[in-house]
Amino acid sequence: MIFEEKLRAVWQQTSSMLCVGLDPDPARFPDIFQKSPEPVFEFNKFIIDSVADLVCAFKPQIAHYAAIGAERQLEQSIQYIRHRYPQLLIILDAKRGDIGSTAQMYAQEAFERYDADAVTMNPYMGDDAIEPFLVRPDRGAILLCRTSNSGARQFQDQQIEGRPLYGLVAKWAEERWRQQSNIMLVVGAGGAQEMADIRKIAPHVAFLVPGIGEQGGDPATVVRAGLRPSGDGLLVSSSRAIIYAGPSAEDVRLAATDFQRQLSVAAADIEN
Amino acid sequence: MIFEEKLRAVWQQTSSMLCVGLDPDPARFPDIFQKSPEPVFEFNKFIIDSVADLVCAFKPQIAHYAAIGAERQLEQSIQYIRHRYPQLLIILDAKRGDIGSTAQMYAQEAFERYDADAVTMNPYMGDDAIEPFLVRPDRGAILLCRTSNSGARQFQDQQIEGRPLYGLVAKWAEERWRQQSNIMLVVGAGGAQEMADIRKIAPHVAFLVPGIGEQGGDPATVVRAGLRPSGDGLLVSSSRAIIYAGPSAEDVRLAATDFQRQLSVAAADIEN
Repeated sequence: MIFEEKLRAVWQQTSSMLCVGLDPDPARFPDIFQKSPEPVFEFNKFIIDSVADLVCAFKPQIAHYAAIGAERQLEQSIQYIRHRYPQLLIILDAKRGDIGSTAQMYAQEAFERYDADAVTMNPYMGDDAIEPFLVRPDRGAILLCRTSNSGARQFQDQQIEGRPLYGLVAKWAEERWRQQSNIMLVVGAGGAQEMADIRKIAPHVAFLVPGIGEQGGDPATVVRAGLRPSGDGLLVSSSRAIIYAGPSAEDVRLAATDFQRQLSVAAADIEN
Repeated sequence: MIFEEKLRAVWQQTSSMLCVGLDPDPARFPDIFQKSPEPVFEFNKFIIDSVADLVCAFKPQIAHYAAIGAERQLEQSIQYIRHRYPQLLIILDAKRGDIGSTAQMYAQEAFERYDADAVTMNPYMGDDAIEPFLVRPDRGAILLCRTSNSGARQFQDQQIEGRPLYGLVAKWAEERWRQQSNIMLVVGAGGAQEMADIRKIAPHVAFLVPGIGEQGGDPATVVRAGLRPSGDGLLVSSSRAIIYAGPSAEDVRLAATDFQRQLSVAAADIEN
């Protein structure tokens, strides 16, 4: 199935645009996982099973595994999702970006070793660093466009012939989408104005939206600014506010349910 | 020792500005390594021992390890350099870039897990994504500035108030260097004009220069455009043209000697 069809299928099947980030930090794990021989995998399984029926995607952030040498547990976590919840998308949050031969190695890492459906990427090096990730029509590249950290302004907002740098990235993604629709954009939840601006420039491209929850983005605002004219097009991601909501499955579920409901209500408001 | 002192010490002690990239690709290994149980580590040892007296630094490119699950062999290779050639610098080429808490995880990966002296980084997300890498004065962050792949023009060369985006990155790095000198810039060997431009904007900041050898950059041109007014400031990197120069240590050594000599001759020409 080509990537854009995968996106549409998962939104239809799950009726959810919520993506849960798997950012394991052993220091924050509930006590019960502290003595496990594979604490990262066990914690991830606990999160995955707690929220799988509320989400459309999981997004492991690779730094949390690379910092502690837990690559094998990342592989296991992804295999677990594939096996138990084959309808869900898996996004590897890795923000890769390098030239030709090296980009091919990173694509191999993301799509073959980890079997992710899509990987986040940095656009700074330009199109030839991104193309190796677009070769497989069933896998997607998700380009950083406008993030909502404080430093985002420093380069992303710089004006180039009357348009910010992030607008240039969005424009290129829209053009590329029309050739082959396996490209998305990362647009942070914190900037509603920027998101609305990017949606105008790139009406067809789906957004991955991090930053609701601990980073403060508001779900309803994101939905209003970010939906495609077709009424879909958002993967809205939260990590810490869900996975560290409390020690029990109920705590985690409650946090995910709350976000999922806010997103659904906002989308229904727009439809009516 | 603070990072800038480490740089000066290694240039003085080795009389070399050559950095050899450790980009293992098992398909290109000489036959002798094909049946080893740890082919990547064994190949790296072969390269390291062949050229250690000709270089100031080694630069493993992490995608080549991540693609095939060879993180343990990367750790072993770095430990081998630390143990046998403690005077040399180790640069982890990873082009990381992410926000606060995740950036800390990537810094832990680079400086603690892999014990690298410096790591390459992508500036697109702005200063708060870079700061966690500047906390340790003995370790450095090397920001992508102007690369020499064909796609570099797409965003890096865009004009912002009369200066290209890469000039903005260079300006910020120079300012940051004056506060704490553990910052460098990646400037590709292919663009002599851009390199001379960046040297003017950032006279104090050392450059990591990839792209001599298989990517076609000329050593003498790089030295003329890139040296600091103080007569040093370059780590000039070649990977494939050296490590795949031939099946014997002599082949590899010959290629490295040739580059190292071209760099030294060009530097001596400038001094005279």
